[in-house]
Amino acid sequence: MPTKLAFIGLGVMGEPMAGHLLAAGNTVAVHTRSKSKATRLLTRGARWADSSADAARGAEVIFTCLPDTPDVEHVLLGEKGIIEGISAGSVVIDHSTISPERTRELATILFHKGCALLDAPVSGGDLGARNASLAIMVGGDAKAFARVEPYLRCMGKTVVHCGPSGAGQLTKLVNQILVSVTNLAVCEALSFAKKHRLNLDKTIDILSAGAAGSWQLANLGPRMVNGDFRPGFTIDLQQKDLRLVLESASDGKLSLPAASLVQQLFAAAQAAGHGKDGTQALYCVLEKLSSLH
Amino acid sequence: MPTKLAFIGLGVMGEPMAGHLLAAGNTVAVHTRSKSKATRLLTRGARWADSSADAARGAEVIFTCLPDTPDVEHVLLGEKGIIEGISAGSVVIDHSTISPERTRELATILFHKGCALLDAPVSGGDLGARNASLAIMVGGDAKAFARVEPYLRCMGKTVVHCGPSGAGQLTKLVNQILVSVTNLAVCEALSFAKKHRLNLDKTIDILSAGAAGSWQLANLGPRMVNGDFRPGFTIDLQQKDLRLVLESASDGKLSLPAASLVQQLFAAAQAAGHGKDGTQALYCVLEKLSSLH
Repeated sequence: MPTKLAFIGLGVMGEPMAGHLLAAGNTVAVHTRSKSKATRLLTRGARWADSSADAARGAEVIFTCLPDTPDVEHVLLGEKGIIEGISAGSVVIDHSTISPERTRELATILFHKGCALLDAPVSGGDLGARNASLAIMVGGDAKAFARVEPYLRCMGKTVVHCGPSGAGQLTKLVNQILVSVTNLAVCEALSFAKKHRLNLDKTIDILSAGAAGSWQLANLGPRMVNGDFRPGFTIDLQQKDLRLVLESASDGKLSLPAASLVQQLFAAAQAAGHGKDGTQALYCVLEKLSSLH
Repeated sequence: MPTKLAFIGLGVMGEPMAGHLLAAGNTVAVHTRSKSKATRLLTRGARWADSSADAARGAEVIFTCLPDTPDVEHVLLGEKGIIEGISAGSVVIDHSTISPERTRELATILFHKGCALLDAPVSGGDLGARNASLAIMVGGDAKAFARVEPYLRCMGKTVVHCGPSGAGQLTKLVNQILVSVTNLAVCEALSFAKKHRLNLDKTIDILSAGAAGSWQLANLGPRMVNGDFRPGFTIDLQQKDLRLVLESASDGKLSLPAASLVQQLFAAAQAAGHGKDGTQALYCVLEKLSSLH
């Protein structure tokens, strides 16, 4: 008999992820705020659930993929939330990027209901979600992870158990520090190169092969140079994640000068109307600071 | 008849670089401050020159590899400098990382003597120098570059003509912005991970494959984790290069907030006695800021 799954939150990430679970032959109940976003999945055989509680009812594994911490709290614990429908022994897998501290508290609540919550934030963007090539960073009970790993492998190429509850979220935040500050490195390097009239494409090419090389340089550098600010990952979402970083840093008494700086420069990008652009639009801020337009 | 070359400055980079030119069958005159550093090359057939002028006499191509701008000025224009021995038609190739603005002035002086100066700073460290796998970034006259390119290919794997005089230095400085700020990204990411008790080796491993990946993360990250601060490239030298970056930025009216920040944090590393350590010792400063010892 096919496993009964539920998927809640069918945004740009969740919809294709749920599609992979469906394609693998599972029965999937789906719920999301706007039913229209479920249309394609419903025509492919997914069952519409009128609430998160309804989706969770009878499901062995329940996936959530939501924007922020309050959304996950609401879907899990709010009126007609998962907690009202879930059965003991089920596993909730949260693909959202949210507070690691709050994740641990939510996991404890579910534990007392006889269920497990795994935090499983992803990286790889909408392209990774569509191609099932996501990196999935998982925190929580190792036995629950082993049980659900095959489902995660339907959606991701790199699936890693990072440690106890919250460790997936923390690993994702480490990722966000790296991508943001490295992005800033690329912005400053290219604005220096532009001001000094170097050939920017050639410069990216030469430097990508050596100690200066990074995914950000090779992938976002050319888009900065070409003024292509279409979002792979938006500045608004990056700012949400940097907020989580800085919250987790203040709780942990950490000093992160560069992460704080890049958060302020992203705020300038948002002020200039670049919130819905890709993170490479940070380059516009650096150009503006040096009158490079 | 073999080409007559001269090599001035036999430090950790220059000595193996001159060795490759010798191995390729050229006659090489060498000069450096301490004659003892030339011993190996002399036993292999290099000719000792008592001064830079003496080395330059009769040489078609003269290579310099020196610590900083004043050293290049002295070797080129000072007493018994290259300028006293050089013949019209010769090419000087400067492998030092020095001021791009001063480079242009020096090139003009040589131009009026009927000679060319190519700026040709390298990246790849002492290992790259020994393995002839350096990246060599060249600025200056294109015809002079074409003429000397075969010699550069004895020493480097990537040899690129970046543009007019100074463009090699500027490209190297773009490289230094990237390596420094990306290094800081890695330091902050790992100090966040350490404070939150993530498995650091695993975290580096997971994140290296995706959008957070960089040469700095993959190569310096593990050394930070293992407390291995042996120098590939020292903080003192990195600071010299960041000084050149910030000088060239102020001349060009550029705002480089992250490059300035990392320069200040490297200053803290120097204050703590890490000047002769590798750039990965920047991690010690971030650890100290967050009491992570």
